[in-house]
Amino acid sequence: MPSDLDNLRVVLVAARNPLNIGAAARAMSNFGVRRLRVVNPYEVAFQEARSAVGAAELLAKAEQYQNVADAVADCRLVVGTTAAARRELQHRLLRLDKGGLAIKRQLKTGSVALIFGSERFGLSNEEISHCHWMMRIPTREEHGSMNLGQAVAVCLYELVRGQKTVPTQIAPGQKEKNPAKSGEVERLTRVLLEVLRDSGYVKPRAVAAEEKLRRLVRRMKLNANDAEVLLGMTRQIAWKLGANEKNDEPPEQI
Amino acid sequence: MPSDLDNLRVVLVAARNPLNIGAAARAMSNFGVRRLRVVNPYEVAFQEARSAVGAAELLAKAEQYQNVADAVADCRLVVGTTAAARRELQHRLLRLDKGGLAIKRQLKTGSVALIFGSERFGLSNEEISHCHWMMRIPTREEHGSMNLGQAVAVCLYELVRGQKTVPTQIAPGQKEKNPAKSGEVERLTRVLLEVLRDSGYVKPRAVAAEEKLRRLVRRMKLNANDAEVLLGMTRQIAWKLGANEKNDEPPEQI
Repeated sequence: MPSDLDNLRVVLVAARNPLNIGAAARAMSNFGVRRLRVVNPYEVAFQEARSAVGAAELLAKAEQYQNVADAVADCRLVVGTTAAARRELQHRLLRLDKGGLAIKRQLKTGSVALIFGSERFGLSNEEISHCHWMMRIPTREEHGSMNLGQAVAVCLYELVRGQKTVPTQIAPGQKEKNPAKSGEVERLTRVLLEVLRDSGYVKPRAVAAEEKLRRLVRRMKLNANDAEVLLGMTRQIAWKLGANEKNDEPPEQI
Repeated sequence: MPSDLDNLRVVLVAARNPLNIGAAARAMSNFGVRRLRVVNPYEVAFQEARSAVGAAELLAKAEQYQNVADAVADCRLVVGTTAAARRELQHRLLRLDKGGLAIKRQLKTGSVALIFGSERFGLSNEEISHCHWMMRIPTREEHGSMNLGQAVAVCLYELVRGQKTVPTQIAPGQKEKNPAKSGEVERLTRVLLEVLRDSGYVKPRAVAAEEKLRRLVRRMKLNANDAEVLLGMTRQIAWKLGANEKNDEPPEQI
């Protein structure tokens, strides 16, 4: 995770529920954000929250403030979050994806406070007045208000989104990397055709069947490894079908 | 919110905590996703969850299943979620932002299942074997495992994020026009497994073989028509292998 996020302060104002405080801390830990500030939390809730999974150290280091002004005093950008539908904002309101861009830019050079209001009331007009602008997660109008811990998680995700920290993993049998050669696919097609004839699925003189089968096998876009495995399977079936008739020896396994 | 999201099924497997089930439902309601499926939930937890804020109706309509196969049978794309760090995946693993693009594309034309494992154990290898690919939220390696409700919120946010932008990347998901439903692919897998056992390719007690085969068949990304044709072929072969032993009558042709 980039050190830019060390410039971010997550500020929870008057959080009431220890589970929500804990969940916010856990999401911070998940996404590599370390600086939590709490403004007037319910004291009991704050103490209980300190057992949040994997975020104990972060909670232990959380800083307590009496009001929003103090909590954001050292920050160069202050952004509030809101469900928005419930009040006429005097502030500029940005969607999370747009606002996230602006925050990421600021984090490169200076500290940013991201403020979340209490579960029941959100941020007051006084608290909002400390913000440069407001940000909204694009929830439905009919049910806009998110759970606090989930709102924190979604906002922080937006801030780490698109970073190249986690490589996309290639699965062992992934077809994009090593597509089977045509010769291998054709061998599979021929053995499969033999099996389909032996089993009576394809009539002995059906000409179009071969082409249909060839197209079908190619639509699978097999990788080299899968093609080899399927060829082995099909050969074994072919042998078994023949052996049942002729009492033959099994083929060499691939 | 776009009606595309009506094609999304959020599947919670063996969720233990009513607060998490409720939180998942609330996030779904926030982001306009309505179809919740639960696989083997702790029954008490599931009942308690029904009081989730603003999501009571959604929870009341949640569908219960005995296993993942049944829960995803009618879906054309099945995506699992994982913290990833804890196991060697046999599946392709995409970051949430890339995977989200692929899911959004599929949602335009067909149903998608997005699966979340239990809080403690995540998804098992058997459950994962029903997935086309896996998706990961870009959390820190040192603390990758997210709270279930938060993970659901973040994934659904990604699906509604920036709805007006045109995706510029090639989706890794479905290449064919009319991808086969999971139930059809699973039927094919089972008959093929039977054939491989009858022919001696798979040993009777080989457990991993079933999961390997399931992954292989899903990598073919079959369309509905090809899956039906292959099922017919495989059934005929199965019959022939059996008939050679038992002098049976042929099955009805598809």
